[in-house]
Amino acid sequence: MVVVLKENPDREQLSNLAEWLESLGLSIHKSEGAHHTLLGLVGDTSQVDMELLRALDIVDDVKRIQEPYKSANRKFHPADTVVEIGGIKLGGGNFQYIAGPCSVESKEQICEVARSVKAAGAALLRGGAFKPRTSPYAFQGLRGDGIELLLEAKKETGMPIVSEAMDPSQLPLFEDVDVIQIGARNMQNFELLKEVGHLRKPVLLKRGLANTLQELLMSAEYIMAGGNEQVILCERGIRTFETATRNTLDLSAIPVLRSMTHLPIVVDPSHACGIARMVLPMAMAAAACGADGLMIEVHNDPKRALCDGAQSLTPDAFADVVKHVDAILPHAYGRA
Amino acid sequence: MVVVLKENPDREQLSNLAEWLESLGLSIHKSEGAHHTLLGLVGDTSQVDMELLRALDIVDDVKRIQEPYKSANRKFHPADTVVEIGGIKLGGGNFQYIAGPCSVESKEQICEVARSVKAAGAALLRGGAFKPRTSPYAFQGLRGDGIELLLEAKKETGMPIVSEAMDPSQLPLFEDVDVIQIGARNMQNFELLKEVGHLRKPVLLKRGLANTLQELLMSAEYIMAGGNEQVILCERGIRTFETATRNTLDLSAIPVLRSMTHLPIVVDPSHACGIARMVLPMAMAAAACGADGLMIEVHNDPKRALCDGAQSLTPDAFADVVKHVDAILPHAYGRA
Amino acid sequence: MVVVLKENPDREQLSNLAEWLESLGLSIHKSEGAHHTLLGLVGDTSQVDMELLRALDIVDDVKRIQEPYKSANRKFHPADTVVEIGGIKLGGGNFQYIAGPCSVESKEQICEVARSVKAAGAALLRGGAFKPRTSPYAFQGLRGDGIELLLEAKKETGMPIVSEAMDPSQLPLFEDVDVIQIGARNMQNFELLKEVGHLRKPVLLKRGLANTLQELLMSAEYIMAGGNEQVILCERGIRTFETATRNTLDLSAIPVLRSMTHLPIVVDPSHACGIARMVLPMAMAAAACGADGLMIEVHNDPKRALCDGAQSLTPDAFADVVKHVDAILPHAYGRA
Amino acid sequence: MVVVLKENPDREQLSNLAEWLESLGLSIHKSEGAHHTLLGLVGDTSQVDMELLRALDIVDDVKRIQEPYKSANRKFHPADTVVEIGGIKLGGGNFQYIAGPCSVESKEQICEVARSVKAAGAALLRGGAFKPRTSPYAFQGLRGDGIELLLEAKKETGMPIVSEAMDPSQLPLFEDVDVIQIGARNMQNFELLKEVGHLRKPVLLKRGLANTLQELLMSAEYIMAGGNEQVILCERGIRTFETATRNTLDLSAIPVLRSMTHLPIVVDPSHACGIARMVLPMAMAAAACGADGLMIEVHNDPKRALCDGAQSLTPDAFADVVKHVDAILPHAYGRA
Repeated sequence: MVVVLKENPDREQLSNLAEWLESLGLSIHKSEGAHHTLLGLVGDTSQVDMELLRALDIVDDVKRIQEPYKSANRKFHPADTVVEIGGIKLGGGNFQYIAGPCSVESKEQICEVARSVKAAGAALLRGGAFKPRTSPYAFQGLRGDGIELLLEAKKETGMPIVSEAMDPSQLPLFEDVDVIQIGARNMQNFELLKEVGHLRKPVLLKRGLANTLQELLMSAEYIMAGGNEQVILCERGIRTFETATRNTLDLSAIPVLRSMTHLPIVVDPSHACGIARMVLPMAMAAAACGADGLMIEVHNDPKRALCDGAQSLTPDAFADVVKHVDAILPHAYGRA
Repeated sequence: MVVVLKENPDREQLSNLAEWLESLGLSIHKSEGAHHTLLGLVGDTSQVDMELLRALDIVDDVKRIQEPYKSANRKFHPADTVVEIGGIKLGGGNFQYIAGPCSVESKEQICEVARSVKAAGAALLRGGAFKPRTSPYAFQGLRGDGIELLLEAKKETGMPIVSEAMDPSQLPLFEDVDVIQIGARNMQNFELLKEVGHLRKPVLLKRGLANTLQELLMSAEYIMAGGNEQVILCERGIRTFETATRNTLDLSAIPVLRSMTHLPIVVDPSHACGIARMVLPMAMAAAACGADGLMIEVHNDPKRALCDGAQSLTPDAFADVVKHVDAILPHAYGRA
Repeated sequence: MVVVLKENPDREQLSNLAEWLESLGLSIHKSEGAHHTLLGLVGDTSQVDMELLRALDIVDDVKRIQEPYKSANRKFHPADTVVEIGGIKLGGGNFQYIAGPCSVESKEQICEVARSVKAAGAALLRGGAFKPRTSPYAFQGLRGDGIELLLEAKKETGMPIVSEAMDPSQLPLFEDVDVIQIGARNMQNFELLKEVGHLRKPVLLKRGLANTLQELLMSAEYIMAGGNEQVILCERGIRTFETATRNTLDLSAIPVLRSMTHLPIVVDPSHACGIARMVLPMAMAAAACGADGLMIEVHNDPKRALCDGAQSLTPDAFADVVKHVDAILPHAYGRA
Repeated sequence: MVVVLKENPDREQLSNLAEWLESLGLSIHKSEGAHHTLLGLVGDTSQVDMELLRALDIVDDVKRIQEPYKSANRKFHPADTVVEIGGIKLGGGNFQYIAGPCSVESKEQICEVARSVKAAGAALLRGGAFKPRTSPYAFQGLRGDGIELLLEAKKETGMPIVSEAMDPSQLPLFEDVDVIQIGARNMQNFELLKEVGHLRKPVLLKRGLANTLQELLMSAEYIMAGGNEQVILCERGIRTFETATRNTLDLSAIPVLRSMTHLPIVVDPSHACGIARMVLPMAMAAAACGADGLMIEVHNDPKRALCDGAQSLTPDAFADVVKHVDAILPHAYGRA
């Protein structure tokens, strides 16, 4: 961390500052320039609040040199993390498809989708029981009953399941759920992150709509600080000025995260674009630049096609995605 | 709601669509153009999911005409809502200052700040007990003990208190807290919104970093749908590409919200800018364009000034804000 | 175009509005709902200024149904446009590499880079002679002399050349340049767009840092309205809140533009990310989701590597990009 | 400037780097930490390209300490710049209203608006002759004839005039125009900036839709580097994710720019919001936080009110803005 002092800083304040920094276990290297004096802080600066420092009368600016995340940092953990889910490996060269409906609706629906996506190549079944909805008047999911139905589909097909928890109070219902999903709107629900950090099961953490990659890793750090190191990161689009797509899928996040962290990275092209016909090309692009997996919405009821989401694929369209992505994988970044 | 059909829509699908829309209690007005046929939907469309409609093969686009929020909508509730907090009125012409430290640290600290901000003109005392922090390694607040200290300051000064709850499980501790704050990162923590909707005490709802004003009102709607109509909206800056300020304070939100809703609107210039010397000018601007109140961070311990936040004012600086804002108020928008 | 009227509109104003709209050759379909009356406008609405309409006292909102671009619109020109550049085809299934240095510096430099990128598989040579630089104190390019050097490299290698023009006054120097590039900062320099619209040579139009895809097509429309239909669109990253990359490469722009327009689409991963090691994965992703070509910065002087841009590749690294992208192309979206 | 080296940098590369930096006239202060070695560069770093440095194998990151703008920098020019326009002072405590129509349409129109805004308190007349329009099919302004009409209005009323130039080739027509406006879309049209830098008349430079305040000052620096120091900065709204307003007016730009630069700052609330009824509250807010002036669109033809822009005020509404803003000015930031 580098502290840039204002010109002619008050001597007493400067000595107070130095004392305080040293009391935090940091050592200080001073470097005087024509207009500025710099203090280089050496030691563990992850607990220093940059904004507190910036507040001081004698400080002009503060620059961070060291990343504020540790457990998630590739520098301290160079090998890729491989997450194991009911015998299925994700990350470190193991690419997986996670597929299923936006919302669990009935036993028939979830089991039929499960069978069809498994046949098409999906390793994990996703399905929403607790649904975060912008409007209080919209369907909020089957909640506990939805989890029950997912577990029946798991029993019938053998597929491990992924489902979203929105609040710590729901976690007891997730005992037999294989992967707990933290949704984009809850990426900085720190109480929830702490709770899943105390569990010993994989967590799929979605990037928030307006969160930087560093913030995503700080949220992963919350989970890992509790002792749970099985975190899967998920890019699902960020909010920008562009209105042609629901969100802007940030695929450059994949190679950037790859260098920052050892955690596996999956991509959800369904939510990012909000348009079913864009799932295929964006899934192919995500695979090409090195994603460890894809999370894709699939619906199955032709009679109710009217109400299927704009972003959901039919099982046939999903099988087509698998076929095209599988053709790209051997040539993908990091594999070829 | 207007549904724009593609050219030459399949007749059977069109008839299915019409049937489904009518089953939702909507009536349909058809209008045929050279290239497009439009369906105007008349009735309560707040429960129709636009993205579901857009997913249909025969649909080109869907445009919403009616706002999806009801309880918060000024159209259905033209008079300004006035929220009463321990005898203090906020909104509908009643302007209030909410002031206090970022974090509650000790009895001496909170009581001293309370006395000084009360003397300077603040009606409500704010103080953080549960602190949402980006890093798991940063101070997380005194939590339950912090609430106790706030209640002592309330007892001593008679000031009603405002404090942030981050999770439904914390709410029992807030029984004697006068206003529950929902932070920016929890604006779409829907489970928390539902819970505070069941309470019968005022809620101060902060706009999320990347949330539209319509989404802010939809979150207010979650609270109001539970029966709690005492919602105070708070603009605190949005995330943009600009890095010179921590966030971009969106003051145009005040007149826009004023026309959309009857709820009171306060502004938090401390968090938006992240720089203490910007609090005064932005507080003056917020008052000038019609805010119903200001929420301002104030610290009080000169000996520990080192660690006070970049965005906090001293009690004297806060008194200066009150003096300048009070001079503007008689000339402010909607008052002069 | 749909005009949403306010409740109980003034009758005289409504009749004035109807008269005016009819004078523009539009016919009006009226549809009355419970709260709103809608006017559906049928005819050529591309010249109606939506904001003018929204200004009227009696109008609540205006929604556009028809796209405001015509020549660039795939609806009116379903077949892919193939741009021919000195015998080389781009678009409609013809994928091309455009490579070369950020700035032309000397005859040796540009000829050596030209030979090496040609050997590696590039069809077109790019090089900057006029350089848009944020700072007036930074190197502004060799300007006219740079164009001369590019033409020598063209003569020596036979490669058609692509170079940026920043102002109409520079165009006479571009007579023998094969493709005129319009940079991101000039995407809405309408006087420049009009001038290149009067030429009969291909124009590579880069998306502005904060411009929507519709605005990109409106700028293409400026060029095409002058009679020049050889427009190549270029995605090069947009400005978002994320700071880990210089810009956020919006690859979803490729499939979205593909459905909006018939014009070819290339991607510039060098400028978007600003980091050389990200060029390879993002180039692979762009190819996978259907780009018609790639524009890549290549430098060649190992002794001066110190000053080569953060985003430039060596000729060897470029050859590696070609090898990996060529392996993906047969499996890419729209090709497999 | 601080250069952060990677761990164990190659010795030869490091010595090359040091040599190169010293050849630029910089001296180097080295500071070694546990994980990182820092090089503090002392001297004029405004010509060092940070991205070039970041590209080096041995460099981890580069942080700028010194601002890259000089002429516009308040550090080197502490006193406020006062721009004089035909005897009227703007800046340094002199607040002015600039008003007039979006487009000049006829002699009657521009003269009538000029008389009415002068009567209401405007010191400067604005009017668009060259109009940047997103669509090539929209009205492009009266161009040269528009300038003539403005000059007639100037002659008749004595008001100095402000009008936008879009291209260097138009500048000869602006000989008698008092202030040349550079529009938001041309903020980084560097050839145009250089040309107006050679003139000796005031330039009103609008902030680009997606440009940072530092970039705005770098564009001012282009003009000032040519010898023209009479630059007026104009905040007119930035592009964000919010769609309730056309752009997000960034009023915090006023106090931030105030500390960065000595140049005067005006605000254009008409373009930022795009809604006439928001001009009044946002004008009041801009004045309250310290703007040096306001630029406001005013139309005058009640019979053609139909076509007046969504953002234009009638002369009466403008007079109301002046009345309310004048009441706030004595209490505004920096004045009270």
